[in-house]
Amino acid sequence: MAESLGVGPRMTAPSPLEQMDAGLRRQLADGAAALRPWLVDLRRHFHRHPELGWREVETTRRIVAELTDLGYETISGRDLLGDTARLGMSSAAIPGEGDTGCLAIFDTGRPGPTVCLRVDIDALPIREANENHKPAAEGWASEAEGVMHACGHDGHIALGLGTARLVRPLLESGRGKLKLLFQPAEEGGRGARAVVDAGWMEDVDLFLAVHLGLGVPSGTVALDVNEFLATRKYAVALEGRPAHAGKEPEAGRNALLAACQMVPALHALAQSSIAGVRVNVGRLEAGTALNIVPQFARFEFEIRAGTNEALEDLDLRCRRLVEATAQAHEVRSVMELRGSAEAWRNPGEMVTWAEGINRATSVYEHTLQDHPFGASEDATVLANAVTADGGRAAIFVLGADLADGHHTPHFDFDEDALAPGVHLLGALIASALAITSGEARK
Amino acid sequence: MAESLGVGPRMTAPSPLEQMDAGLRRQLADGAAALRPWLVDLRRHFHRHPELGWREVETTRRIVAELTDLGYETISGRDLLGDTARLGMSSAAIPGEGDTGCLAIFDTGRPGPTVCLRVDIDALPIREANENHKPAAEGWASEAEGVMHACGHDGHIALGLGTARLVRPLLESGRGKLKLLFQPAEEGGRGARAVVDAGWMEDVDLFLAVHLGLGVPSGTVALDVNEFLATRKYAVALEGRPAHAGKEPEAGRNALLAACQMVPALHALAQSSIAGVRVNVGRLEAGTALNIVPQFARFEFEIRAGTNEALEDLDLRCRRLVEATAQAHEVRSVMELRGSAEAWRNPGEMVTWAEGINRATSVYEHTLQDHPFGASEDATVLANAVTADGGRAAIFVLGADLADGHHTPHFDFDEDALAPGVHLLGALIASALAITSGEARK
Amino acid sequence: MAESLGVGPRMTAPSPLEQMDAGLRRQLADGAAALRPWLVDLRRHFHRHPELGWREVETTRRIVAELTDLGYETISGRDLLGDTARLGMSSAAIPGEGDTGCLAIFDTGRPGPTVCLRVDIDALPIREANENHKPAAEGWASEAEGVMHACGHDGHIALGLGTARLVRPLLESGRGKLKLLFQPAEEGGRGARAVVDAGWMEDVDLFLAVHLGLGVPSGTVALDVNEFLATRKYAVALEGRPAHAGKEPEAGRNALLAACQMVPALHALAQSSIAGVRVNVGRLEAGTALNIVPQFARFEFEIRAGTNEALEDLDLRCRRLVEATAQAHEVRSVMELRGSAEAWRNPGEMVTWAEGINRATSVYEHTLQDHPFGASEDATVLANAVTADGGRAAIFVLGADLADGHHTPHFDFDEDALAPGVHLLGALIASALAITSGEARK
Amino acid sequence: MAESLGVGPRMTAPSPLEQMDAGLRRQLADGAAALRPWLVDLRRHFHRHPELGWREVETTRRIVAELTDLGYETISGRDLLGDTARLGMSSAAIPGEGDTGCLAIFDTGRPGPTVCLRVDIDALPIREANENHKPAAEGWASEAEGVMHACGHDGHIALGLGTARLVRPLLESGRGKLKLLFQPAEEGGRGARAVVDAGWMEDVDLFLAVHLGLGVPSGTVALDVNEFLATRKYAVALEGRPAHAGKEPEAGRNALLAACQMVPALHALAQSSIAGVRVNVGRLEAGTALNIVPQFARFEFEIRAGTNEALEDLDLRCRRLVEATAQAHEVRSVMELRGSAEAWRNPGEMVTWAEGINRATSVYEHTLQDHPFGASEDATVLANAVTADGGRAAIFVLGADLADGHHTPHFDFDEDALAPGVHLLGALIASALAITSGEARK
Repeated sequence: MAESLGVGPRMTAPSPLEQMDAGLRRQLADGAAALRPWLVDLRRHFHRHPELGWREVETTRRIVAELTDLGYETISGRDLLGDTARLGMSSAAIPGEGDTGCLAIFDTGRPGPTVCLRVDIDALPIREANENHKPAAEGWASEAEGVMHACGHDGHIALGLGTARLVRPLLESGRGKLKLLFQPAEEGGRGARAVVDAGWMEDVDLFLAVHLGLGVPSGTVALDVNEFLATRKYAVALEGRPAHAGKEPEAGRNALLAACQMVPALHALAQSSIAGVRVNVGRLEAGTALNIVPQFARFEFEIRAGTNEALEDLDLRCRRLVEATAQAHEVRSVMELRGSAEAWRNPGEMVTWAEGINRATSVYEHTLQDHPFGASEDATVLANAVTADGGRAAIFVLGADLADGHHTPHFDFDEDALAPGVHLLGALIASALAITSGEARK
Repeated sequence: MAESLGVGPRMTAPSPLEQMDAGLRRQLADGAAALRPWLVDLRRHFHRHPELGWREVETTRRIVAELTDLGYETISGRDLLGDTARLGMSSAAIPGEGDTGCLAIFDTGRPGPTVCLRVDIDALPIREANENHKPAAEGWASEAEGVMHACGHDGHIALGLGTARLVRPLLESGRGKLKLLFQPAEEGGRGARAVVDAGWMEDVDLFLAVHLGLGVPSGTVALDVNEFLATRKYAVALEGRPAHAGKEPEAGRNALLAACQMVPALHALAQSSIAGVRVNVGRLEAGTALNIVPQFARFEFEIRAGTNEALEDLDLRCRRLVEATAQAHEVRSVMELRGSAEAWRNPGEMVTWAEGINRATSVYEHTLQDHPFGASEDATVLANAVTADGGRAAIFVLGADLADGHHTPHFDFDEDALAPGVHLLGALIASALAITSGEARK
Repeated sequence: MAESLGVGPRMTAPSPLEQMDAGLRRQLADGAAALRPWLVDLRRHFHRHPELGWREVETTRRIVAELTDLGYETISGRDLLGDTARLGMSSAAIPGEGDTGCLAIFDTGRPGPTVCLRVDIDALPIREANENHKPAAEGWASEAEGVMHACGHDGHIALGLGTARLVRPLLESGRGKLKLLFQPAEEGGRGARAVVDAGWMEDVDLFLAVHLGLGVPSGTVALDVNEFLATRKYAVALEGRPAHAGKEPEAGRNALLAACQMVPALHALAQSSIAGVRVNVGRLEAGTALNIVPQFARFEFEIRAGTNEALEDLDLRCRRLVEATAQAHEVRSVMELRGSAEAWRNPGEMVTWAEGINRATSVYEHTLQDHPFGASEDATVLANAVTADGGRAAIFVLGADLADGHHTPHFDFDEDALAPGVHLLGALIASALAITSGEARK
Repeated sequence: MAESLGVGPRMTAPSPLEQMDAGLRRQLADGAAALRPWLVDLRRHFHRHPELGWREVETTRRIVAELTDLGYETISGRDLLGDTARLGMSSAAIPGEGDTGCLAIFDTGRPGPTVCLRVDIDALPIREANENHKPAAEGWASEAEGVMHACGHDGHIALGLGTARLVRPLLESGRGKLKLLFQPAEEGGRGARAVVDAGWMEDVDLFLAVHLGLGVPSGTVALDVNEFLATRKYAVALEGRPAHAGKEPEAGRNALLAACQMVPALHALAQSSIAGVRVNVGRLEAGTALNIVPQFARFEFEIRAGTNEALEDLDLRCRRLVEATAQAHEVRSVMELRGSAEAWRNPGEMVTWAEGINRATSVYEHTLQDHPFGASEDATVLANAVTADGGRAAIFVLGADLADGHHTPHFDFDEDALAPGVHLLGALIASALAITSGEARK
């Protein structure tokens, strides 16, 4: 970045542009309002065609088509992630799987910051409700058996494409570069790591990400968000030696028993003076037949912590515990990372900036202070990568009334929340890229 | 039974009929030899069409057909077991399933003992080998995907039908009644209990059962067999309460964790001064998602012991352990019996008798003494039911060279072992029913 | 104040008497300063003669003597706690043991509130350091082998007696009643419960307690204190059945094994969304001989939580876990409460009042805001009893520089911290009892 | 006998000397009968003065005195075991402790075998009963508080000294060499290993050991003894890291919890097709205070097996389990052997020989066949050392009615069993050393 930044972070936080010119304010407001029907259509399209993480092939195709229409350069599939490791994706993926996600780029050609807005695009392995459920009643429920956009990522795609459309005509007047990231495989904390590893965050000066709903009602926005929990998800495979349980039990090396020793020991590691420390073995499967000393066991667990340091400590203890307990029972163990997210809290100056923009544009009436996220989100991996490199980052929660909780079959959100989201995101980008209206330039 | 038996067992062991008349000896020897090709054909038929326990529908149909042809009265399906509980059979069985097994009866009309020969008819969930394997090479391998007669029960059916055919013309000269039981669902220790509960053993004075192979070579027979291990098989289902593992772990009641506490505790119960005491948790499956405190767990375990008393003690301890540990973790538990077998050793007088018959008929050259069975077999349930009621019983191992171990994909046995088995079984039945040859009656 | 006792809380918080009359302010300041040498002597006396909880016999004798000299009515020993259960005291206590602690009372005879100041008097089972340690160097180290005032309760006694002496001449001008409680057996959370059960808190309108040090430096006071953790301490005794481990292991019921199952299960209960939830099995002892299945096991554990409700929930789960796991292993269990403390945070109006008094009297230069106690203290039991009954309560931390951490052999505190403590306590009591100086009354 | 030592076993079993000359038979019978009062006095002396293993100082002194009187060369204390490691003896032993045990030697000066008779001399940490107990009633109960000859080793010493006295006058006529070993520290399986390591078994051609009682009644002897269980006894010490359990639990490394994970895992290793496999954690002690994450844990366990090979396998699994589980919990572990014994069964030719001698001398009326020892005895270490080196060995059980079980406070045995024991032992030694009576030599 520009040498002008001297020492310290390569970019100072954008200053609140309460003085954002009136013409621009009007363009953003009118543009966002006009997008409403299109945003709803888009959202419902993606809602009908949900795809699981690393399998968002048709989703990606549609996103690319829209962005190309709008005149963005797009990078997707293999070109996006190449041979980067994709956490939690089976190595036996069908060809084409994993070649998902899209990055749209617009370079103003003028010096200035690189600003990245990230939305996530994957769905969940949940069977959508077909009674007392608006998508079903109105005919736009999931057409993919057992797969559902039950977390609102369909809305996130609409927000991303809507913002792309809103700011596109304004970008010529700005400075720097815009990156719109449609990230695959957020659920389980998988996709963000691949994006970082592929290098796409290296030149980003300002990173923004959003999530809809999460208990924040329509008309309200949470900009001052903290307590994103760091997390890692693991799959452990154990292999012992089978034996006839009646005739020669001593010849067996019992993988099921080894796993059963690990589970309470892992849980006992969760006591900590650091808030948010958790261990959960969420699945376990072992053994084949009643009369055989079990040769195989497989379990999955996640750890969480309120700080990355505490997670790192816990991670080391868990690894050692699994590995050495396996040795204690003479079984082989393989422990594989399946997903991760990091701890995060929006920095004060980013909060101040975004609050200023929201005031200047009057998008959200209410603003939450000191709002705890209380869960994990893999945009944190992107945010930390950017800040580690001297950039700035923030993750916001855009209010949207919900029909039912996230990750439930009756989940749905207030579609009227889409246009305000696009409005604020457009204004934040305009501010960051120093966009001015034609009027202002006059 | 007849009051003439006075005190004690209602039937004394048949005396070794070394003086068995020469005509009868010849009839049995010639008859058995002539059956060889038919026995092999039958065995191969059943080998091609294996059916799992409680699903031996076509198997039963063929057995009934053969026995009817031979002039036996047969009872099968619903008429055999009615509404008797069938261990380990899903209550959601398709109609007709479970209506398997057959009992053939021939009543001489003259006073005398009721003699029962039992063979078992079910196959195993094993995929048969298709290389280096005679059934595959000769075209009579299993045609049922993933199901295989890998324990020799196809041969047992042939032995049962062969014996039925061998003794049929001789029965008119005998006394008492013959019952030939083709028992379903031996694997896992399930069918015998249903037969006893349905009352078919109540009038049996002499019970015989056989198993082929088990390490005893062709040309050898083990009549003096002991150390049949008592066993019970259980399925345990646990239900706790789910909760978000990150946000409210204290609200969950963890069924996976409860199961993991039970497993080593169950294993620790296996120390005993009684030989053969074992505990094996053979399968465990629990939990659904990484971030949910697991609501459900399910595991299966078996216990074994060298005596029925030791098994009963162990059983009580296991039940208490499962139930109370579930309470300790505030999860509900259901523990369901899935199968059982009992301890057994052939009584000396039965051994002496059978050895006498073998000598008289010169069927097997070698006879093993003090032979430990070392595993479990549900014919023991029938044998104990008969002796508890004052009758006599024995379970023999008929030698047969093996291609590979029982319960393996390459299992096969020497088909030349079938005719000698039929020969000895015919002679034992002839002795027990006091059959004489036409010559002797002259 | 009296009429305000009608509805709701029987006493409103005393109002900050910044207008405290100048004569009184001077009397308190001069009086406290003059007490310094006497306070140090007293503290060193008790430091030399430490006594463990429920055994503070000589300690109590000296306290009673001082208070009687000052003209207080005192109640001590049997008269204080009678037959009230004393947590954690062996029933085989030597006569006289447990008859410890003292309550001094002064009744002004005029209507007004009952104000209680509580200090604790017991020492710890720690061997005092004899090198690099001021008490040893100056000749006033512990003379009781293996017992040491390593938490500052020697200072607390001095604070209590000093306050008694400071306010005594002023009491005649006040209203209401003063109770000075010298509580036994605070360590392990035992004595306060007995005091409450004996009824001594029933008429208390305002309750005050203090602790020295705890990381708060000399010259600083923490009045706005929160996060006192609720805790309970338990001793669990298990009794199984012994057996020769080689000859008849199945006859044993293994208390050691049962205990070992409980420990990780207890630890696994500590995950919670409530801060401060902890489980620690701190001691375990089981078994007698290598070749005997262990008949007895005994362990002690503590639980903690940031709220009384969370502690109660955890307590129920632990009890159920211990009891049912014992049943699972067929051992008998007895779980005995050995100590407890409750959650607490000083109410805002009490903090405001005390801050006002401190400002008015200029005792402490620095005042900590929102100070987390982060540990457990059984004065909380008294404080909660008083507030449950409509009274007011607060527990303060009086700054004192430390030589080493509490509960360590090198623990020592800055004795210059005693006089300021007496000064502030005197002022608080004067305010609460509406004491005025002679000057003011003129 | 000498030339047979060339190839293979260096000594063939002595042949049953049913033809033992009548004079010798009479000398042995008369001599043994005459010793009865002296044997009882001796036994009672040792019963009154029991000493624990490695502390048999006074016991050794008396044994040496008696043997010296009889004209044996004796080696004892330091001269016997030197600096040989003594299992289970604290390294902080008081000087002189451990310098216990005695070996008496008589060399005939003529070529012949070296015959060793071993008895054990240590007592148990048991408080002797003082009611309903003959030693108490008659005034010869233990005078050492909490120490008791509750296994009969007092009788064993008397048997050893009695045999020394009986055969002494006959030895001149024999061939070869006699060694009488009074072994310390048999309880816990400790002393025999030290004797072997010191080399005293190297030249032994025939080894004999005996135990009184064990359920074999007076008048009966068990010569055909098998199922001596191999055993090892271990002490495990774990060291973790302490931490305040409330304030910083994650800083602790919990030795108590690690131990609790090991215990059920060790117990779960005991399932085996080999008879007699056992694991018992007999003692566990851990932790210091309720609010400290336990830094230390210490436990003792024993393993047993019916064969030395099975013990070795189990031993390896236990070591690995302890070491790796400690690593899993990040605690250090030290596992120390505290005692051992080996598997053993008396060889047929030794049984035949001893039965012949018993018949020839008519000492015991009844002889048990195929008698299972069913426990552990460290004479097996000596026996295996001798046979590994080409010698012969046997361990016999001499019948003696018991007042109560071994290792109980009311244990006592029929003192009339001592003289027959001496009689048989004398005859066996006479046979082995080819002793003849004066008459025979005439």
